[in-house]
Amino acid sequence: MQNNSNTSISLIAGGAGFIGSNLASALVARGRSVAIVDNLSNGRRAYLDRDPSLVGVTVIEANLAVRNECRAAFDTIAALGTIDEVWHMAANSDIPAGVDDPDIDHRDTFLTTFEIVRAMADHGVKRIHFASSSAIYGDLGSRSLHENIGPLFPISNYGAMKLASEAQLSAAAEKGLDRVILFRFPNVVGVPATHGVILDFVNKLAKDPSCLDVLGDGSQQKAYLHVSDLIDAMLLVADQESEKVTAVNIGPVDEGVPVRSIAEQVVSRFSPGARIAFGVGNKGWVGDVPKFVYATDRIQAMGWRPVLGSGDAIVRAIDEIARQQGF
Amino acid sequence: MQNNSNTSISLIAGGAGFIGSNLASALVARGRSVAIVDNLSNGRRAYLDRDPSLVGVTVIEANLAVRNECRAAFDTIAALGTIDEVWHMAANSDIPAGVDDPDIDHRDTFLTTFEIVRAMADHGVKRIHFASSSAIYGDLGSRSLHENIGPLFPISNYGAMKLASEAQLSAAAEKGLDRVILFRFPNVVGVPATHGVILDFVNKLAKDPSCLDVLGDGSQQKAYLHVSDLIDAMLLVADQESEKVTAVNIGPVDEGVPVRSIAEQVVSRFSPGARIAFGVGNKGWVGDVPKFVYATDRIQAMGWRPVLGSGDAIVRAIDEIARQQGF
Repeated sequence: MQNNSNTSISLIAGGAGFIGSNLASALVARGRSVAIVDNLSNGRRAYLDRDPSLVGVTVIEANLAVRNECRAAFDTIAALGTIDEVWHMAANSDIPAGVDDPDIDHRDTFLTTFEIVRAMADHGVKRIHFASSSAIYGDLGSRSLHENIGPLFPISNYGAMKLASEAQLSAAAEKGLDRVILFRFPNVVGVPATHGVILDFVNKLAKDPSCLDVLGDGSQQKAYLHVSDLIDAMLLVADQESEKVTAVNIGPVDEGVPVRSIAEQVVSRFSPGARIAFGVGNKGWVGDVPKFVYATDRIQAMGWRPVLGSGDAIVRAIDEIARQQGF
Repeated sequence: MQNNSNTSISLIAGGAGFIGSNLASALVARGRSVAIVDNLSNGRRAYLDRDPSLVGVTVIEANLAVRNECRAAFDTIAALGTIDEVWHMAANSDIPAGVDDPDIDHRDTFLTTFEIVRAMADHGVKRIHFASSSAIYGDLGSRSLHENIGPLFPISNYGAMKLASEAQLSAAAEKGLDRVILFRFPNVVGVPATHGVILDFVNKLAKDPSCLDVLGDGSQQKAYLHVSDLIDAMLLVADQESEKVTAVNIGPVDEGVPVRSIAEQVVSRFSPGARIAFGVGNKGWVGDVPKFVYATDRIQAMGWRPVLGSGDAIVRAIDEIARQQGF
């Protein structure tokens, strides 16, 4: 990227990760100048190399949870042009790891938000899009999870630090930000896969091709969105939204698929004939929300519908991950 | 306090502060063994000395936001008996200060919670009562603020870090805590006054007895609770509540009093004849919620009613603060 103070830059925090790298491609395809900051803990430069259009995009390796590193990254990018929006996709994505060690979500999810807000104020950046999560809702049983429901009692540190980030951004909007869009993601699938149920199953089968151990009894049913639909949704909302602070659920319009079905499909593709050993209970791990009904009326009213339902998203992602893993 | 492993101890974080010191007296009056941890930034030992029944109560000066200090404080108290409950009243109480410097609320409100949760897990403490706030609701206009309302978009870092603390405690309940009670406080008045509108006015009049400058146009109307009613409410809820995680609004059952009335009463008591100079607009500062309707149906259904309404609470607190300040 050339030094040009007239250039308007989209800064993507976590831009070398699963969702961030897909977002980078989409923004570049729209003609945006993109700069990426990533600590490369989950993200990889190789994820960016997959897309020829990302050649030449500025990539800064920095831990945004650390004040000096965050400040330096913003300073470097600000020297290339005007940062006019931030897409904050940096976070811990391993929910069970965060249950075991609360420091992980505090640092990688919350402190990144906290320091980004500070750096934005220093640089006069007014607009941020944040990757929040359905996990902020906790386990509200069979109640439909619309954006204004309460109480918000997350059951994982992951969900807690996503909610804490929303709160910090909301307060920052009172102080100086013009636009805060809180995207509450569902389970998202696709490539480059860095985590998630499909990759977990694939990795387990790589270790033991004869048997797939599944946490829980397989009845957990979740809604899945393909990353391509997620990116389309974010861009559509970002184009239309005019509220100062808004939260938008993004998710499939179906009721999801049970883990059992995913396990069967992964076995069929990666290790046909392997036995599937289910556990007990309908929770996969502490902090796992077994089943929820995700209300997407708000984003549908904005004219968005996913191209792929949960079932089709899983089918495509399994295929993409198979190719990623060399199958 | 004697070393006795059979002693059940109530640990009060922030127990030397405004609400914490009143709570300490109330718990001791109920026959509880109390141990206080306080960094003495807002709290003072002198606040405890006011109550003879608190002589002999263990007071540890420590910053609970710092892992080693928090751990050491818990270890010290655990050597005196069994910590069977925590009352977490430690926080930044200066909302405008936190608007100017987000580190304050992050450290004093959120990190204290974060480290207390960790220390509780280490010591097997299962029950916590947390001083949350109506500030978590942000500015929802004329909507009635009941415990399940949303969205939760706080407009101050103070409110943001109270909500973040709620979220962290909620997640901890999934991991091991048995009882999390989130008390959402209104504006609380009484002594020992460390902050708040009355003391602000008194301090301003001390500097300039001829004129009281009031932020905003005086029309901001807020509900106030006297600290004696707040303590009664917390104890009543703690006795009755059986949910694993619950949030309870505590507040007056009236619609509050306008700032103008408080200003007039303070002037009349401290500096009769002083001019009152109002500002512009209905917000006192960035992050101030001008007017809200606080729903207290839940706690009323548990049998609680405040002895003093907002108006009477202000009258009594002005009198108490006058005596505290030597008037």
